[in-house]
Amino acid sequence: MTDLQAILDGIYTELKPRIGEGRVADYIPDLAKVDPNQFGLTVTTVDGKIYSVGDSAVPFSIQSISKVFMLTLALGKVGEQLWKRVGREPSGSAFNSIVQLEEESGIPRNPFINAGAIAVTDVVISGHAPREAIGELLRFVRYLSDDDGVTIDGRVAKSETHTGFRNFALANFMKAYGNLEHPVEHVLGVYFHQCALSMTCEQLAKAGLFLAARGSNPVAGLSVVSPKRARRINALMLTCGHYDGSGDFAYHVGLPGKSGVGGGIFAVAPGIASMAVWSPGLNKVGNSQLGAVALEMLAARTGWSVFGD
Amino acid sequence: MTDLQAILDGIYTELKPRIGEGRVADYIPDLAKVDPNQFGLTVTTVDGKIYSVGDSAVPFSIQSISKVFMLTLALGKVGEQLWKRVGREPSGSAFNSIVQLEEESGIPRNPFINAGAIAVTDVVISGHAPREAIGELLRFVRYLSDDDGVTIDGRVAKSETHTGFRNFALANFMKAYGNLEHPVEHVLGVYFHQCALSMTCEQLAKAGLFLAARGSNPVAGLSVVSPKRARRINALMLTCGHYDGSGDFAYHVGLPGKSGVGGGIFAVAPGIASMAVWSPGLNKVGNSQLGAVALEMLAARTGWSVFGD
Amino acid sequence: MTDLQAILDGIYTELKPRIGEGRVADYIPDLAKVDPNQFGLTVTTVDGKIYSVGDSAVPFSIQSISKVFMLTLALGKVGEQLWKRVGREPSGSAFNSIVQLEEESGIPRNPFINAGAIAVTDVVISGHAPREAIGELLRFVRYLSDDDGVTIDGRVAKSETHTGFRNFALANFMKAYGNLEHPVEHVLGVYFHQCALSMTCEQLAKAGLFLAARGSNPVAGLSVVSPKRARRINALMLTCGHYDGSGDFAYHVGLPGKSGVGGGIFAVAPGIASMAVWSPGLNKVGNSQLGAVALEMLAARTGWSVFGD
Amino acid sequence: MTDLQAILDGIYTELKPRIGEGRVADYIPDLAKVDPNQFGLTVTTVDGKIYSVGDSAVPFSIQSISKVFMLTLALGKVGEQLWKRVGREPSGSAFNSIVQLEEESGIPRNPFINAGAIAVTDVVISGHAPREAIGELLRFVRYLSDDDGVTIDGRVAKSETHTGFRNFALANFMKAYGNLEHPVEHVLGVYFHQCALSMTCEQLAKAGLFLAARGSNPVAGLSVVSPKRARRINALMLTCGHYDGSGDFAYHVGLPGKSGVGGGIFAVAPGIASMAVWSPGLNKVGNSQLGAVALEMLAARTGWSVFGD
Repeated sequence: MTDLQAILDGIYTELKPRIGEGRVADYIPDLAKVDPNQFGLTVTTVDGKIYSVGDSAVPFSIQSISKVFMLTLALGKVGEQLWKRVGREPSGSAFNSIVQLEEESGIPRNPFINAGAIAVTDVVISGHAPREAIGELLRFVRYLSDDDGVTIDGRVAKSETHTGFRNFALANFMKAYGNLEHPVEHVLGVYFHQCALSMTCEQLAKAGLFLAARGSNPVAGLSVVSPKRARRINALMLTCGHYDGSGDFAYHVGLPGKSGVGGGIFAVAPGIASMAVWSPGLNKVGNSQLGAVALEMLAARTGWSVFGD
Repeated sequence: MTDLQAILDGIYTELKPRIGEGRVADYIPDLAKVDPNQFGLTVTTVDGKIYSVGDSAVPFSIQSISKVFMLTLALGKVGEQLWKRVGREPSGSAFNSIVQLEEESGIPRNPFINAGAIAVTDVVISGHAPREAIGELLRFVRYLSDDDGVTIDGRVAKSETHTGFRNFALANFMKAYGNLEHPVEHVLGVYFHQCALSMTCEQLAKAGLFLAARGSNPVAGLSVVSPKRARRINALMLTCGHYDGSGDFAYHVGLPGKSGVGGGIFAVAPGIASMAVWSPGLNKVGNSQLGAVALEMLAARTGWSVFGD
Repeated sequence: MTDLQAILDGIYTELKPRIGEGRVADYIPDLAKVDPNQFGLTVTTVDGKIYSVGDSAVPFSIQSISKVFMLTLALGKVGEQLWKRVGREPSGSAFNSIVQLEEESGIPRNPFINAGAIAVTDVVISGHAPREAIGELLRFVRYLSDDDGVTIDGRVAKSETHTGFRNFALANFMKAYGNLEHPVEHVLGVYFHQCALSMTCEQLAKAGLFLAARGSNPVAGLSVVSPKRARRINALMLTCGHYDGSGDFAYHVGLPGKSGVGGGIFAVAPGIASMAVWSPGLNKVGNSQLGAVALEMLAARTGWSVFGD
Repeated sequence: MTDLQAILDGIYTELKPRIGEGRVADYIPDLAKVDPNQFGLTVTTVDGKIYSVGDSAVPFSIQSISKVFMLTLALGKVGEQLWKRVGREPSGSAFNSIVQLEEESGIPRNPFINAGAIAVTDVVISGHAPREAIGELLRFVRYLSDDDGVTIDGRVAKSETHTGFRNFALANFMKAYGNLEHPVEHVLGVYFHQCALSMTCEQLAKAGLFLAARGSNPVAGLSVVSPKRARRINALMLTCGHYDGSGDFAYHVGLPGKSGVGGGIFAVAPGIASMAVWSPGLNKVGNSQLGAVALEMLAARTGWSVFGD
């Protein structure tokens, strides 16, 4: 698939003049400092090839994309029992809405809105000290990406702790409804650290390749989840992966994906490839502006949309 | 693909003891009278083959599935301008919620909730008398299914008119916000008639085949929409096609689809096949109970899920 | 109480330079044509005296103030059974919110928001043709004000019918929940006519005097409602009489009252007096701007606030 | 007014067989232990007389009634500027709803719902250590009631701290919107202690007498607030004092009042008397069941309703 590198190069050339577009997230102080003039894109195919352009080797804060890995761990621990604690429906409202939570008595709508991810984290913690839960996640992601260079950025984690009042509100709210087993501070401690995972496009694309490859990691050669579970995680990403912009992403890109406010987007072409794009400037629904454009171009030129070529 | 008939036969044999499960919709008097002990399933492949089991030749009220055809007509008329009148995001609430509409100032969340479909109908009417708009839809569906036997059940349409207070509320509400061009009575007259389309599984699977076949109807041999538009309609079905059960359907079945309270579900395996299933008993989110089960079995056994095999 | 005329004169003199402030309601075409440079105020005391200033003899559209008289009729018909159809709590949202109605399954929060008043009208219609129900209200108001000059402005009623989509939405919505006995068109026909009652400040103050006088009309000399019912209607006016500005009116004026978008406000000083003020320009919560100011001045200078002198 | 004692005795005799009705609040562990078979009622008149029946000398946890005293302190500190931080409209929803807060961007609807009271507490803290703010409140209430026996129940305060997840959610939520100046833990520390004020009916009726007496405390002989501010606090109690039961209380009792989940209700007959009733069993909207009944009887028999005699 030599064409693939050509496609990536073409996308990069076209988007180069636009690098810097969008608005860097400013509600987490340490993210606000990131240089917006960066763009990286990596595609890893199920046969193990890697294609990259731009700043694909620069680490960035993956933020909410970490929810995909945490969800995978939680499903591994409790299986379909997880759905007693969190729903599977798109939320129809902003990523940190508390209204939804009140209307549904403390059960978050899906595992990718903040409240849902906090509940998922609570499940992963089970039987662990907070520090161990973070360690488990870090080991898991390093294993998946086959790269011990993946780290957690302590300053970003701390930065979130200090400004994360809304997440404290969500967590306390779920606690009030009995949908949080561990102390709020423990759960959020882990949550803020998971969001502070620092990865490059290359590491991220490789780490998620198992979702494109029937649940197995062709790089590491081992099964991570069953084919059925891989499909289901992909389904959740497609319907719920971009907050209130999920419908729009499906409409324009047509791939299961998960975005983060650090400007990264991870996406999957089932049976074909996984990919990670990063550009810090966000569009008005909070997803990487150029990242979404790049994936729309990539899906159109490859015919990878799950909705038809 | 002789296996396909065997798969359908297997599903039918397994589900036969469960036929009659679920609860027939009772809020439309004429639908409440339907015999629940029926089940039909048809698959049409992009190479023009047709596979059926059970009551696949019995006409039923397709209800909300008609929204897919009306959306296709509306996009043909005004193109992407349509999205000024209606959104593209999953709704996160019941199919006939008026709350959403108030919060978003009369712009329905997507074209598949009732309010959105009413706005779409208003677009299709444009420049027509109501009777002509219904005629246009009927001709379109007959053309797509290559079958002049498709009819509109006048009694069902009338039955809805008399009990459709909530739809009258939705339409008047949009009118109050200036998001309805024609008189409420005209728009709902067309809307109730479109929902009363009476089709068999075979007719329905054939009518929607263009969505599996890059926008062209391999049976009739002509382009209906562009490949891009076909993908986009599929994306809307996947994220919004089953009201507040859309996430669940994506999770379990993994195919773009649209359900109706008459107990029908239409679904698409892009590039491969279109399919229609019908069984009147509904599950608690208002979709055909056995229909959803049958499609889950079908997707699992064929590996057609868009999220991986 | 010779001072009372002096107080009214003083208020009029002070407010004269401000007459014309606020914004005339424009959503009902016929109201939008009213000259904003008008101001009238009448106080009737329980000993039968009448004090007036300004345009107190000019008829205006009383709009929502009519809900007080309709509520009185409905309580006369079904007594406390009325509260099965409508609540008694302040609404915490705009006067025509449909959200509330969905959350509470078709039971309006109180009889003074539009939905509640529509339900009250449905109760009054019971056993009547629409025309008779309007006739009953007109006779009642003429009797209370001891003045056959009270009329209904047909053009205003018709004007509302044509633009009242939101009220049609509310009514159909309640109908969907089974909380409307008569056909939507009948109920709204009566509702739009009641809102089109045309009265002067003098007629209005006299018509509501029974609420200040233990339920009896000292002018006509007869009991209208029991003392207990008069208190209760006053309580409803105080907590719910000004839509989402009810708390503000209680805070600043301290009298039970009911406002209308025609710029009128009716208020009661229990045991002392009833009063009506009119000035067409509205403030941002939809109540007469100068009317509210005038009543605040009046309550302050007379010590009539129910919350202390 | 020798009759007053007779009226109280009569009410007590009639209600005696019903003592124990309702359900003791159980969400705060230490309140759940209170013996439900208690009932006390005290009336203090503006001429300094005190009338009591039943357990009027037994201290109970005044809970939300403390919000009236805290509001008085806050208005004393920042005056009408307070209304930039909190609204003055009835809430139309449960006392601890977070939905409202999100819809109105962190500005609570009124000072008597929990979020509003937390904002008020934040204002009172200003320039204080938490401990000092509690001390100030305690001194204020002791001064008002002319009784140094008023205490704060540390166990109740601690009990709330441990289960007050919803209040932590509300406070963090306001903090996220910038509507909380001090650290969440400090504000809630004070808040939980103010709710743990332990007072008898006699102390409470005396402490609030200034609200019936044009802002002055006839017992202590000094002005507490201006007559205008007393009226305004009374107005807030009438429209917002009983959460989602405020309209009902106005309808049945007709007096400004504030209830607490400890089973106490404080009420004011402006110009005449203040009163406190206590009975631990709550009705379904969370107010003292017998307390509300007793006040309805008292208002009916004395003619003290602000809405007419």
